[in-house]
Amino acid sequence: MYTRCVTCRITYDGGMPRWKPDARQRLVAEALRLFAEQGYDATTVSQIAERAGLTRSTFHRYFGDKRDVLTAGRETLGRLLADGIGAAPPSATPLEAVWAGLERAAAAMTPFNREISPLMRAAVEANRELQEGLEQKHAGLAAAMAEALGRRRVPRPAARIAAEIGVLAFTTGYQRWNPERDDEELAPHLRAAFEELRSAVTDLR
Amino acid sequence: MYTRCVTCRITYDGGMPRWKPDARQRLVAEALRLFAEQGYDATTVSQIAERAGLTRSTFHRYFGDKRDVLTAGRETLGRLLADGIGAAPPSATPLEAVWAGLERAAAAMTPFNREISPLMRAAVEANRELQEGLEQKHAGLAAAMAEALGRRRVPRPAARIAAEIGVLAFTTGYQRWNPERDDEELAPHLRAAFEELRSAVTDLR
Repeated sequence: MYTRCVTCRITYDGGMPRWKPDARQRLVAEALRLFAEQGYDATTVSQIAERAGLTRSTFHRYFGDKRDVLTAGRETLGRLLADGIGAAPPSATPLEAVWAGLERAAAAMTPFNREISPLMRAAVEANRELQEGLEQKHAGLAAAMAEALGRRRVPRPAARIAAEIGVLAFTTGYQRWNPERDDEELAPHLRAAFEELRSAVTDLR
Repeated sequence: MYTRCVTCRITYDGGMPRWKPDARQRLVAEALRLFAEQGYDATTVSQIAERAGLTRSTFHRYFGDKRDVLTAGRETLGRLLADGIGAAPPSATPLEAVWAGLERAAAAMTPFNREISPLMRAAVEANRELQEGLEQKHAGLAAAMAEALGRRRVPRPAARIAAEIGVLAFTTGYQRWNPERDDEELAPHLRAAFEELRSAVTDLR
């Protein structure tokens, strides 16, 4: 049973959610709402489960503790980015390979990822702990991309800078992904952010 | 009273420490040793104070809790980097300004900073929490540098990449700073790491 939540920023048409959330997605969305509303420390697993209309034991089928909700998707996203980088043609420059990674990640994003973007932003703005969790997530993504570039024999300094550019492009593009528009894709936002960063590189010297 | 510690990786000549640690520095060094030896979670403020030959209340004169030991110096270092960036000549490119920041930070580093470098590395290798603490510290330093570059009217994308390069240069150079050599300065290590990164930028496209 999915109970309609009055504080939801996700809108429903005729009582139907725009995407059909599974239990895990409901837990993530409700956890982010609670973190934004009352803080990370004050939020319990029981409250998250209750708001999602689920039990504590269902929560623990998906997550060890509330902290895990924060880093949800980090491994998947890191793997998508690394896989895309690995699959880029051998002739690709480091930044072209990074773009291949971003494109792979964008292709795997669902309406759920789009809808939680503003929830994530609101939660992070309200909580220092969440800000730190996000910084760790970004560091993990950068490390995954730098490793994937290393496997392409990109020298370490170039791999690390290219990976940082990849993280900046992903976070910037993801923030601009508009949850109000059903038809909107992530890829063009990532591409625009990536191109801004790529041309900025030439002005650094 | 400074008690000699059998697990110390800091060496003493004739029983005298190479640098004259003040209470705060002793607390940082002993905390890092304990984190490496027995883990961050298992280490208490009382243990840190005891090993440093100080009281709990002395610890709390310098730090709120053991977590604060990790991020010790972050504000100071961020300010040094930002001040150096701000003081660079108006004609400086973004990367030249970043170098001015690194140079300012290097000039402020003391033998204490050199001696704790391997302690920090050992502690971080042993603990996931410390790794995360360090990633947050780096994100904070990057933010401080990007802001300082923004005040120089460097556009945001370029400022963020230049700041990430600054963090990579600092962390790489700092890791190479040899605590076994009394006469060694940090600046040449930062310069070498910075130049590696700067030339890598041209191979990214």
